[in-house]
Amino acid sequence: MNPPFRIAIAGLGTVGSGVMKALAARGDELSRRAGRNLEIVAVSARDASKARGFAVKNWTADPLALAKGDADVVVELIGGDEGVARALVETALANKKHVVTANKALLAKHGKALAVLAEQNGVSLKFEAAAAGGIPIIKALRESLIAHGVEAVKGILNGTCNYILTEMEATGRPFADVLKDAQALGYAEADPTLDIGGGDTAHKLALLSSLAFGAAPDLSAIAVEGIAHITPDDIAFASEFGFRIKLLGVARRTAHGLDQRVHPAMVRARSPLANVNGAANGVLVDAGAAGPFFFSGRGAGEAPTASAVISDIVEAASGKLGPVFGQPAASLVNQKSAPHGAAVSPWYLRFEVLDLPGVLAEIAGHLADAGVSIESMIQRGRAPGEPVAIVMITHDTAQSGVERALKAIAASDKVRARPCMIPMEAA
Amino acid sequence: MNPPFRIAIAGLGTVGSGVMKALAARGDELSRRAGRNLEIVAVSARDASKARGFAVKNWTADPLALAKGDADVVVELIGGDEGVARALVETALANKKHVVTANKALLAKHGKALAVLAEQNGVSLKFEAAAAGGIPIIKALRESLIAHGVEAVKGILNGTCNYILTEMEATGRPFADVLKDAQALGYAEADPTLDIGGGDTAHKLALLSSLAFGAAPDLSAIAVEGIAHITPDDIAFASEFGFRIKLLGVARRTAHGLDQRVHPAMVRARSPLANVNGAANGVLVDAGAAGPFFFSGRGAGEAPTASAVISDIVEAASGKLGPVFGQPAASLVNQKSAPHGAAVSPWYLRFEVLDLPGVLAEIAGHLADAGVSIESMIQRGRAPGEPVAIVMITHDTAQSGVERALKAIAASDKVRARPCMIPMEAA
Repeated sequence: MNPPFRIAIAGLGTVGSGVMKALAARGDELSRRAGRNLEIVAVSARDASKARGFAVKNWTADPLALAKGDADVVVELIGGDEGVARALVETALANKKHVVTANKALLAKHGKALAVLAEQNGVSLKFEAAAAGGIPIIKALRESLIAHGVEAVKGILNGTCNYILTEMEATGRPFADVLKDAQALGYAEADPTLDIGGGDTAHKLALLSSLAFGAAPDLSAIAVEGIAHITPDDIAFASEFGFRIKLLGVARRTAHGLDQRVHPAMVRARSPLANVNGAANGVLVDAGAAGPFFFSGRGAGEAPTASAVISDIVEAASGKLGPVFGQPAASLVNQKSAPHGAAVSPWYLRFEVLDLPGVLAEIAGHLADAGVSIESMIQRGRAPGEPVAIVMITHDTAQSGVERALKAIAASDKVRARPCMIPMEAA
Repeated sequence: MNPPFRIAIAGLGTVGSGVMKALAARGDELSRRAGRNLEIVAVSARDASKARGFAVKNWTADPLALAKGDADVVVELIGGDEGVARALVETALANKKHVVTANKALLAKHGKALAVLAEQNGVSLKFEAAAAGGIPIIKALRESLIAHGVEAVKGILNGTCNYILTEMEATGRPFADVLKDAQALGYAEADPTLDIGGGDTAHKLALLSSLAFGAAPDLSAIAVEGIAHITPDDIAFASEFGFRIKLLGVARRTAHGLDQRVHPAMVRARSPLANVNGAANGVLVDAGAAGPFFFSGRGAGEAPTASAVISDIVEAASGKLGPVFGQPAASLVNQKSAPHGAAVSPWYLRFEVLDLPGVLAEIAGHLADAGVSIESMIQRGRAPGEPVAIVMITHDTAQSGVERALKAIAASDKVRARPCMIPMEAA
């Protein structure tokens, strides 16, 4: 038998507790899989005495001490893209300790530098838990779907947004109400900005994109739009057209560079992504000649995230190294980004207008001026005096053309609120 | 840079050709991922001069020579559970060469012994291509979904069957007609027995089951039923009840042992497995506390299967070892099997009966005698003189009870043909 594998865990929130419990419950089998005994030699958390349902031995107040002790791996579950988490990961790697982390924000911001540091020190930096929770999408992109080159990755990567959109569809209630309930139920944070604004999805997309395309993670290259402006009307109209609305992270190789975006999108009601419901996550990978592959499951929560962390720990224990992002970190480059607005698709457009003569002519005129051609249209009557929703589906159009038209239309005094535009995904 | 990784390929059929092409087209990136140059040093195929669209260098007539040469890895793509394929794999492992194979029949029959041999010799035996083609389900079960213990694996693992069932549903045509077309199109073999009889699915299930449950692959423990008896009526009735019919491989941990079965099953029309269409494959893994995870994609064909083979080659090249079935091969045991007939579910039953007085009373009587209680029933009129289809859905019932009732009913002279029974899956 090999010497034991010494594990230090920093952070005992939901995920850290899940890791402790699973190692306690199934340590024997997991040690057999790792080829050596898995031993927790140090734990750092804010409060050693908090009731957690398990005993905390070898507690230390200072997380940084874990990076300097005798652990073989440091499991960073503190979070945050700077501060203690960053210092802990950097110090651990520099001290030739493997690092396992669930920290998407840290890796989205400093992924390349940390990967270079890990590879220079001959240790691994693993982060299966940083995107899509228990779904092994990091490993699939890093090690499995590599033969033919990935063309695109599209993911539902934020369970909070997907829960809210699913609830809005099921109940017909507006965004703000459903968000409030989600907060009460613990599905959304007190400050939900990072989730509903799309930032969390962008962090995860940056990592998937790096693995798929050999790019350095680059948040600044991702255009981000959240879900707060989606209305029950949009969801109902989508359904009439045979679509559902999902917040997607999309990274795609194009002739003009790498196209990375986070935004609500219409997906065909029968497509795999459309049927990812509630707090679940799902990822569609277009693996070139090998075809599309789809993965779904629980993307957050104690057990699914702990499952991902533990798979990384076992892999580190069994001596599997390999480059952090699948290719040597030094070779990751800031790939050329596709120019903003180049993405071509049909678009769903919704205008809230005053029911006045000439309003349709004005909208149609601006669309024609921008070269946007309309495939179908719905106008629905409302109570007298209320604004009327006009909904259109365009033919294939570049985003920039639609944006130009909508800017002109938004300036009209017959149009209430900001017009809504949502791309319709082919798959 | 590490020394080059020397690859010997045995078999240049569809998959072997796909591997050669992908290595030729993307060898640079793949070498970067592997951390060393990937070099094909020997190839064995029946005919060196056949036109394949690529040049075959270093050809050798005798595949066994590959196991004795200077290759680091032998890629076995010959097929068959004995003969040359088995001799090649055994000799290569004994000579301390890594082996990558797509050979599900060989591993289902000799998996444990070969894994022991590989582990004794300190080399890897990798087989991602042996189940579900390009879907990285072998790796997911071996390395990722390990923290909480897998409760069940359910897979659509045979593209030919799934293509036939999908076509039957789309066109309403009978099994035999659709099979003939599938053969003409190359989706089914001239001798389709292994596919439509469920044997191929059983081979693959034996491997998934080993990875999920630490069992030695054991074909004899799998009850196998094919799809030849499924009629367009069954598919239409299933649809009325909100279900679709799929050939599933199911392995499940039960209180009475490991339950492994291959059979047509009704799956809810909105479930992920129900929406795996055409020649695609899909696998649902119930990963205990971590929840269900679903994987789908192309399960056969040149590029998807080559993708799986190449991921294994790159992994072997990068020095990742680890036990063949996730746990040390010597620890794989023949797990206790759940007794036949213990599986409990609702059942779809179809009887073709003569339209005579008393027939329903007779059927109902036999069902009652066996303790089978009926949840709903459809009887549909036909042209006079033709047999009538009676369809029933039972409440939760053990398979053995349904079988007992159907045996009695089949003996009636009012019943035409063998009654059909299909379990209805909860997910």
